[in-house]
Amino acid sequence: MSEAFTRVDANPIMRPADVRPTRPDMVIECLLNPGAFRYQGKIGLLLRVAERPIQEEGWVSTPVLDPTSVGGMRVVRIRKDDPELQYTDPRIFSHQGKSYLTTLSHLRLAWSTDGINFVAEDKPTLLGAGSHESFGVEDCRVEWIDGRYYLTYTAVSEFGIGVGMISTIDWQTFDRHGLIMPPHNKDCSLFPKRVGGAHFALHRPSSQGIGGNYIWLSQSPDLLHWGDHRCIALTRPGMWDSERIGAGAAPILTDAGWLAIYHGADKKSRYCLGALLLDAQDPYRVLARSRTPIFEPLAPYEKTGFFGNVVFTNGHIVDGDHVTMYYGASDEVICSATASIQGILETLHL
Amino acid sequence: MSEAFTRVDANPIMRPADVRPTRPDMVIECLLNPGAFRYQGKIGLLLRVAERPIQEEGWVSTPVLDPTSVGGMRVVRIRKDDPELQYTDPRIFSHQGKSYLTTLSHLRLAWSTDGINFVAEDKPTLLGAGSHESFGVEDCRVEWIDGRYYLTYTAVSEFGIGVGMISTIDWQTFDRHGLIMPPHNKDCSLFPKRVGGAHFALHRPSSQGIGGNYIWLSQSPDLLHWGDHRCIALTRPGMWDSERIGAGAAPILTDAGWLAIYHGADKKSRYCLGALLLDAQDPYRVLARSRTPIFEPLAPYEKTGFFGNVVFTNGHIVDGDHVTMYYGASDEVICSATASIQGILETLHL
Repeated sequence: MSEAFTRVDANPIMRPADVRPTRPDMVIECLLNPGAFRYQGKIGLLLRVAERPIQEEGWVSTPVLDPTSVGGMRVVRIRKDDPELQYTDPRIFSHQGKSYLTTLSHLRLAWSTDGINFVAEDKPTLLGAGSHESFGVEDCRVEWIDGRYYLTYTAVSEFGIGVGMISTIDWQTFDRHGLIMPPHNKDCSLFPKRVGGAHFALHRPSSQGIGGNYIWLSQSPDLLHWGDHRCIALTRPGMWDSERIGAGAAPILTDAGWLAIYHGADKKSRYCLGALLLDAQDPYRVLARSRTPIFEPLAPYEKTGFFGNVVFTNGHIVDGDHVTMYYGASDEVICSATASIQGILETLHL
Repeated sequence: MSEAFTRVDANPIMRPADVRPTRPDMVIECLLNPGAFRYQGKIGLLLRVAERPIQEEGWVSTPVLDPTSVGGMRVVRIRKDDPELQYTDPRIFSHQGKSYLTTLSHLRLAWSTDGINFVAEDKPTLLGAGSHESFGVEDCRVEWIDGRYYLTYTAVSEFGIGVGMISTIDWQTFDRHGLIMPPHNKDCSLFPKRVGGAHFALHRPSSQGIGGNYIWLSQSPDLLHWGDHRCIALTRPGMWDSERIGAGAAPILTDAGWLAIYHGADKKSRYCLGALLLDAQDPYRVLARSRTPIFEPLAPYEKTGFFGNVVFTNGHIVDGDHVTMYYGASDEVICSATASIQGILETLHL
């Protein structure tokens, strides 16, 4: 197996130290999974910035957005020897039956003229807003459709994890469209244009018991309301994508069909990337799927970090046959890798 | 606490023996949770009929819809001493990591002129169809909207449990609209008319980890595509509705707002009914909610059966201030109870 992507030499291209915290008492633990887009001759990344209070010896603390608290944020602070404190993994803990994220994520713009050297803005671009984003906003896809940028992201709150939508034209003013997919759902990737008159989106609802963490495809007349939900890809027992799968950035229209890069995780939560090829006219029809990963955590910064052995993408820039992918490595740093689209299609052995 | 509803003397009004199995080798184990509607001067119930093969000593067997099998159905048959066979409860088992329902449900019409004596049709009205209903169709709400009957029901398959929609005018020909809510979702109840130009629906997505089994409200321009999903009611720790809640039949417009009857279950899976009152103009606003049940399993046929201590409703007929509720008791028989709508509102202590 050979990977379809080539890492850029400058990796990682952004680290937590490159971004200013929201407040002086906070520390940025991770930069993750950026959306990517072109705007006014520049490349923009919409980073997921995960921060928490500077940790004190013997305590764990995490921020929660709360409009009723001073500054719109309150800090949940629990003694580490509290018998009711339980850690699931570095990303989640629970206390007295309630679940919390260990960090609070917001979205922040970073700009570049060469696609490698990025400068982040000084302040958050989009914080979670309202009761359905009190645990933050994460992993934002950005797609230009019908004259607007549409942002689809993971909205987290005590009510569950769903897909939020925001649109903008100028990256200065934003329209919030609420949750377009109810919980439990994430990894929502809009198609760049209509197919047969309808908008399409890939997304990843999760089920306990019957069902799993599968990729679904749905359609919409207006991008805001969604229906005709159908499962198009399952996890594959014993393979690299045995436990959960989810779409990356927008599918790319090729001569062979819609090429969708997706992530897959195995039982050890090792995250790799693969590809799905969907019929150009009927995207519910899956034409091909990677048997082996087209990209996997091999570099040191992909194997070790806040949550190691992870490569996760939800942003790329397409230029003819050339795709520049942006991805989060080990849930801590931002990286880039490039590929030939034809080269990715060839790995699918059509 | 006194109940808002009065049981009819004829309860249970329908039992499994009142309905003919789909095939001679099948037995009807349960009648459950009917939708209810008026049509051509009659009362119609759309029963959920749960059946399985006549069970053999030492084996468990359950049907799965499969268009590639003879007759469109195959039977999964497992030895009871198979170490990989695991029962969750009387409704679900798993084998070799795959989950199955113990029965296969279809929907069947039953008709009455007095609302109490019902005669079921000889054959299934609606069987699960397509890959997303291979484990059956369940708990169908029926509502007359804009000149059509809209059916919203639980669609079960290996891909998960979602909300399917079918519409009809004449109960002879049916239009299938696919899944309108992706998994994990059920208990979808359409509002009988638009509010502020939009259609509304209550539904019950489920989450593991962050989130729970809560009631959500969403809106739609066309009943087929849904957005602006918001959580409007949580489970309440320590109360009768501590574990899961879900909407019943269509909310009823009253002078005080939209009255929605819902079910709630506690840790022991005892199912009772309560009421939510939503603002007439802005149904996302919850005005009141039952502290104690307005109906609970007390009669012998509600306390004992296939899955005891359950009253569950998703069908009613409204006539002025009078509501005739149809409900499933102990997941086995169909019952009816009546109430004054004003009387239900009074239990909310407005």
